[in-house]
Amino acid sequence: MKLQTLNDLYIEELRDLYNAEKQILHAMPKMLRAVTSDTLRQAMEQHMEETKHQVERLDQIFEGLNVSSGGHKCEAMAGIIREAQEVLTADADPDVLDAAIVGQAQRVEHYEIAGYGCARTYASLLGREGDVTLLQETLDEEGLTDRKLTELAERHINERALAQS
Amino acid sequence: MKLQTLNDLYIEELRDLYNAEKQILHAMPKMLRAVTSDTLRQAMEQHMEETKHQVERLDQIFEGLNVSSGGHKCEAMAGIIREAQEVLTADADPDVLDAAIVGQAQRVEHYEIAGYGCARTYASLLGREGDVTLLQETLDEEGLTDRKLTELAERHINERALAQS
Repeated sequence: MKLQTLNDLYIEELRDLYNAEKQILHAMPKMLRAVTSDTLRQAMEQHMEETKHQVERLDQIFEGLNVSSGGHKCEAMAGIIREAQEVLTADADPDVLDAAIVGQAQRVEHYEIAGYGCARTYASLLGREGDVTLLQETLDEEGLTDRKLTELAERHINERALAQS
Repeated sequence: MKLQTLNDLYIEELRDLYNAEKQILHAMPKMLRAVTSDTLRQAMEQHMEETKHQVERLDQIFEGLNVSSGGHKCEAMAGIIREAQEVLTADADPDVLDAAIVGQAQRVEHYEIAGYGCARTYASLLGREGDVTLLQETLDEEGLTDRKLTELAERHINERALAQS
């Protein structure tokens, strides 16, 4: 890994996010199959569609930079997903599992909020205004998804999980 | 892993955070040695002291619940730290490395914000008001640290990194 300039760091950050998004897209169907609440499943399905657009935005940015998107494995997202998959194999009540899945999904969102926040700041410093717009769109979606998950949890998922005691 | 009740999920969440904090405390000295900026090092040293208190708060919560704190490895934090350590081995300019370390530290903070946010919500639903107070204190510290890192990055770290091009 070369980090001699802010531009190097920007590209590493983008590759990390690109690989993270790809891992999320690969892991999501299994998570979705484990969900019981219809509203939670719908919210996650909608975010899966958004995630595909987020990958397209990154593709567009890599094209503009004329660099490849590959070559970096996001170890952090690999760990987050490994832990989410552990949850799916738990001896679990379905409603408690839904609450646990919300918690795992929020970890994914927060990782992305941190990463996209940095990438957007670097893009701005490097004067890449087109990239800033694309990265900000994704950042807004991640923030909105996180808040929607909190809302769903507070509205009924956690209460249902609480009833199992 | 048993997730039959919200209380089971609460305990799993606490054990995950406990293990994550222990991993952070173990990894931080190496990160600190790689930092060039004095203000960044001071901010990280201060947060390391806070982290020790956060572990004590969790100890107190486990004692109140009369359950052990062990038995869970936080795979997500292991991945985040593995990635941060990769950054330390990069062929890097010192100022660009500082900017990269801020980005890695913010990933750590965001993981904790997601996790402590869930734990605090579960504690509240379970009527454990004392735990809520302790978890909220930690959550506030994590949020404050994240904002302080952003401020340091915006004030001078990113500008210094930008100058290396």
